[in-house]
Amino acid sequence: MTLPLDALPVPDSVRQQLDFLLESHRLTGIVRLNRLLDGSRGESSAEHSWHLALTATILAGEHAPGVDLSRVLSMLVIHDLVEVEAGDVPIYDEQSRLDIVAVEERAAVALFGRLPAAQGGELLALWHEFEDAVTDEARFARAIDRLQPLLLHWASDGAAWAQRGVTVARERRLMAAIEQFWPSLGPLADSLVTDAHRRGLLAD
Amino acid sequence: MTLPLDALPVPDSVRQQLDFLLESHRLTGIVRLNRLLDGSRGESSAEHSWHLALTATILAGEHAPGVDLSRVLSMLVIHDLVEVEAGDVPIYDEQSRLDIVAVEERAAVALFGRLPAAQGGELLALWHEFEDAVTDEARFARAIDRLQPLLLHWASDGAAWAQRGVTVARERRLMAAIEQFWPSLGPLADSLVTDAHRRGLLAD
Repeated sequence: MTLPLDALPVPDSVRQQLDFLLESHRLTGIVRLNRLLDGSRGESSAEHSWHLALTATILAGEHAPGVDLSRVLSMLVIHDLVEVEAGDVPIYDEQSRLDIVAVEERAAVALFGRLPAAQGGELLALWHEFEDAVTDEARFARAIDRLQPLLLHWASDGAAWAQRGVTVARERRLMAAIEQFWPSLGPLADSLVTDAHRRGLLAD
Repeated sequence: MTLPLDALPVPDSVRQQLDFLLESHRLTGIVRLNRLLDGSRGESSAEHSWHLALTATILAGEHAPGVDLSRVLSMLVIHDLVEVEAGDVPIYDEQSRLDIVAVEERAAVALFGRLPAAQGGELLALWHEFEDAVTDEARFARAIDRLQPLLLHWASDGAAWAQRGVTVARERRLMAAIEQFWPSLGPLADSLVTDAHRRGLLAD
């Protein structure tokens, strides 16, 4: 994006932050597999990120009272920013998900590198924390990131599953990560998959 | 939305949370005045809420190191949810902004009332905290909520300003709230308005 940021009479660090915020806004143009619940268009990755933050806010009290919620929310807000360069690769494209790792890593370095050095380093570390899924905050965030699309697929009569021909066994295997990341969310994920199968939304 | 939530074998409190999350997802269908930066479609209120959370994350360290960031982020994530019932009313429709207050209040009671009672009460209080703009967390969040559209209008060559015939004096008056809510953000807001006027994006 070429914007007349140079002409703004603000400190360099502020200019870098505005540039980062405007570049990041392109996440609104990255379209995901699932559609809005009214079917009108694909959900953008920006909307997905917002709904993850809302979901974390709603579920944290009961499921993760000890985690640092500000860290979880910041992580969810930034976790997909690399897609402005790398695009969104659905979880069902398993080989492509592996192939994209190095691309996303380069995109993260470039994008967070637009910020003042110290802040860019902190956000890059936060993004790595999410990817590495070791801390409680990252593991809760990762579980939420997998649970939200499951809920939307379930609520939209499995349209995305049908489009990709996803079987119940495959969905159960991919969603097992929810319980691995955050055990107390496992039963909820299992209920959604089981009900979707019962209703014929996931194939045998 | 009518979803087969009743058939899910989960506790009532979880059913209420899922119902709330799915109803809230309708915020993706609420279209704001400004378009995406590539001009392709209007920004949704869900995307706006995400970008506010990102902006707060980026600016908090320098501008608001003492505020509770988790509270700021949660507030920003929920602050526009009432629009799923009330719709978005641009700041430039000043009379309509006043008229909508009671509608939004009823929408908040109804929407947060879908949650388990204790949690719904907490979120309704958080929404009121944002609206009342008394605490530091709410005031910082309110400043960010006004700064982000200003930045987007500036970055999209003032398309929304032109559409509404906004003068520099009017924009300066409306954006004065940024400095009132959070003084250290005043100079940045002023720089954007002044530069937009210099470039002819805001009329005399």
